[in-house]
Amino acid sequence: MDAQALIDAVTFDDDGLVLAIAQDADTQQVLMVAYMNEATLRQTLDTGQMTYWSRSRQAVWQKGETSGNIQRVRSVRVDCDGDALLFGVEQVGDAACHTGHRSCFYRRFEEGTLVDAGELIFDPDDVYG
Amino acid sequence: MDAQALIDAVTFDDDGLVLAIAQDADTQQVLMVAYMNEATLRQTLDTGQMTYWSRSRQAVWQKGETSGNIQRVRSVRVDCDGDALLFGVEQVGDAACHTGHRSCFYRRFEEGTLVDAGELIFDPDDVYG
Repeated sequence: MDAQALIDAVTFDDDGLVLAIAQDADTQQVLMVAYMNEATLRQTLDTGQMTYWSRSRQAVWQKGETSGNIQRVRSVRVDCDGDALLFGVEQVGDAACHTGHRSCFYRRFEEGTLVDAGELIFDPDDVYG
Repeated sequence: MDAQALIDAVTFDDDGLVLAIAQDADTQQVLMVAYMNEATLRQTLDTGQMTYWSRSRQAVWQKGETSGNIQRVRSVRVDCDGDALLFGVEQVGDAACHTGHRSCFYRRFEEGTLVDAGELIFDPDDVYG
């Protein structure tokens, strides 16, 4: 896919990164947010699979590379000032979060405390333990 | 509201900021993404109205302060590593974006070009022109 029109609309930050929000294309649930640089954005569009830039590891992070929980790109949107992208994705394997929850946003703030209000897809201890 | 449990779960970045995604609590449409510091996060919880920190203006930005398009907080979630918040909001005045679109993510990338695929609520020229 010719990514140039999208690249041109993106304002990368001082570290060369742009925010990438992954939203379930069917349910509209927000699954996670991470970053992409220009190269991983191009890779995402070329492969149709969400590919982030890991700030902590300073490395290409093809989502689901090890877990199999890849995210297939269904749609791409850019916001008004170009510093954030919104991807509609198909979440393969159901869990976007390494904790085993469907969404990374599984903790809800209620009456002064945080409650686990997320759907647990797998026990991470079974995977990483 | 006692915000401390939430504050404790947040990892503010080097600039003292945390990402804040605003999602329509009814339709699940992602409306915008911006930043909060600890003070505006507390203000958001205290007032029940989305209050961001403007990085460009380096100032408190109570959403809708001038336009009337405020965002009422319905729910608050925090992600696994605490560097992003997801707010379910009621968007008053229908348009979250200063361009007059309902969502800031009104441009969709299709077949190598960006198309305006967003719902235009008002003509910004009528407001700011």
